[in-house]
Amino acid sequence: MSTYGHDSARAIKWQKNALHLLDQRLLPSRTEWLVIEEVSGAADGIRDMVVRGAPAIGITAAYGVVLAARCRYGENPENWRQTIEADLQLLAASRPTAVNLFWALKEMKRAIDGVAEMTDPEPELLALADRILAADIEGNRRMGALGAGLIDGPCSVLTHCNAGALATGGYGTALGVIRSAYAKGLVNTVFADETRPWLQGARLTAWELIKDGIPVTLVAEGAASHLMSRGEVKWVIVGADRIAANGDVANKIGTFNLAVVARHHGVKLMVAAPTSTIDLEAPSGRDVPIEERTAEELLTIGGQRIAAEGASAWNPVFDVTPAELVTAIVTERGVIHAPNTEAVAALMRST
Amino acid sequence: MSTYGHDSARAIKWQKNALHLLDQRLLPSRTEWLVIEEVSGAADGIRDMVVRGAPAIGITAAYGVVLAARCRYGENPENWRQTIEADLQLLAASRPTAVNLFWALKEMKRAIDGVAEMTDPEPELLALADRILAADIEGNRRMGALGAGLIDGPCSVLTHCNAGALATGGYGTALGVIRSAYAKGLVNTVFADETRPWLQGARLTAWELIKDGIPVTLVAEGAASHLMSRGEVKWVIVGADRIAANGDVANKIGTFNLAVVARHHGVKLMVAAPTSTIDLEAPSGRDVPIEERTAEELLTIGGQRIAAEGASAWNPVFDVTPAELVTAIVTERGVIHAPNTEAVAALMRST
Repeated sequence: MSTYGHDSARAIKWQKNALHLLDQRLLPSRTEWLVIEEVSGAADGIRDMVVRGAPAIGITAAYGVVLAARCRYGENPENWRQTIEADLQLLAASRPTAVNLFWALKEMKRAIDGVAEMTDPEPELLALADRILAADIEGNRRMGALGAGLIDGPCSVLTHCNAGALATGGYGTALGVIRSAYAKGLVNTVFADETRPWLQGARLTAWELIKDGIPVTLVAEGAASHLMSRGEVKWVIVGADRIAANGDVANKIGTFNLAVVARHHGVKLMVAAPTSTIDLEAPSGRDVPIEERTAEELLTIGGQRIAAEGASAWNPVFDVTPAELVTAIVTERGVIHAPNTEAVAALMRST
Repeated sequence: MSTYGHDSARAIKWQKNALHLLDQRLLPSRTEWLVIEEVSGAADGIRDMVVRGAPAIGITAAYGVVLAARCRYGENPENWRQTIEADLQLLAASRPTAVNLFWALKEMKRAIDGVAEMTDPEPELLALADRILAADIEGNRRMGALGAGLIDGPCSVLTHCNAGALATGGYGTALGVIRSAYAKGLVNTVFADETRPWLQGARLTAWELIKDGIPVTLVAEGAASHLMSRGEVKWVIVGADRIAANGDVANKIGTFNLAVVARHHGVKLMVAAPTSTIDLEAPSGRDVPIEERTAEELLTIGGQRIAAEGASAWNPVFDVTPAELVTAIVTERGVIHAPNTEAVAALMRST
């Protein structure tokens, strides 16, 4: 356990010249790592949700570029910078909503452009991917401290989906705040909702909090309003997949529900996300593409059919919470209270 | 199909001197009927959710009393009215929230008191149970017409849990309104949310609507706010397990969420329930007991463990929606707009 405490889970590792991804589709019943040596494996891992969570997707894409560069440079050291373009596009097409993916690809592209002619790009690109991973964890720890500083505890909090170590390089965004606040005695009970259809709350958030000795109580998503009406929950704390320039927050489907319900009950909403999640090119949430996944995710659970034959399903996996429902956005650079376009721009100008 | 159209599902039948219950735990994958000849089977069927839904629970209890009377009168025709008391208590203890259970038991008790000395009570009690069942269906059809009359369609509607034929004697409360409105072309798309943990939406609502040729689209409960933000859904239509004297509505967990989210988006909320669901002895929702069921319902799905080992869960299965979030309560006696204590009392005084 690190000096930050309650922080033992990791989902992405670079070892023995390969990318290792903890297969989150199998958690909590099995802990298996996939070893990925080709860029297509990284793209598949993102699309098929071996790895998920905006920061983790970005980090995976960065290592995917390392694998791509190794292959393309090996094929032809003279034109790898041209041939790798297809790999960058493959990675960019893996999932649409999390902007950290595109941010990481842009960072890697800049490094690609900077590699000297006829020089093996792998060491330089690997060093950058490692820095992205390390900076993510360090940023999460800063966010943890900043977010915990907003909590006037001890109190209960509610989180949605998994914005934890598993969704990032480590420590987590929303769960980083919860880890920090729990260590300081500011949070006494963590409620995690199940998060249909993928059950990230039941499967992943519960797993990583229990692993780190933080007690967690699962609730159905439908229980949020009843829970909040009891008065114990003071904050809803979530991550984000993309934050628009005006502070609108795209995050796991169900976040918008929680934001509305929290406001009704006077419960505050904290969004914890690195600045790489902020997309200044999207003026508002209307400009964020919302991924819709297969109906099968709703019609079945664990391969078992649950819905009546003949039923169709609509499965948008993100929604957009308007900035006015967000109490604070916590980033590694600082906190945006009552987010709007000016406040977001000011934070992004700061260093 | 009846003249009312789109109405073929039934879950409770009295046949060959026995109570037949469609086992709703097995739907939609299997259609099996349990044949119940003893009151304990009726109580078990309610507690274990072979049958569920407030009106259906009341009807089942009524037939349970018939079975109890047959047995107690057979044991001793002189003191069956004393010995049946234990059976009435057994039924009353089967589930706490739906008030229709207690209403039906009160109706049956009055009939028990009216049976002549040394007279087999079964024919008289069976006739009353049959009347309760028939009146429920007839009331649902009236509610269907009244509720459809409120819908300025064509539009989409969202329903929660199952307040359908399966939850009643037949036709349904919320789904009765939807059946009526669909037949009149006032509803073009029915969204049904899954309704965790028991998945009544995915398993039961989808099943009975598809069976009756009404197209249904499943959504995760978390998708409600995103769905409503698109503007197609004009009404959320639900049933109720108990309505307090002030119009507060106890219904399946998640209803309160939907009510808050609907209000935020300017979507109306209709609660369809017979007057037997109105409990004038509960001044407000605070006076309604909220059942909490086993954590296993959240930790597992279909016998498969989904949540991390060590996780606990809180599983309240109802919540209370404050009357001020309800646009209209539709009963078989008429519609209460903007419900409050005076309006509820006025309706209950009417005949």
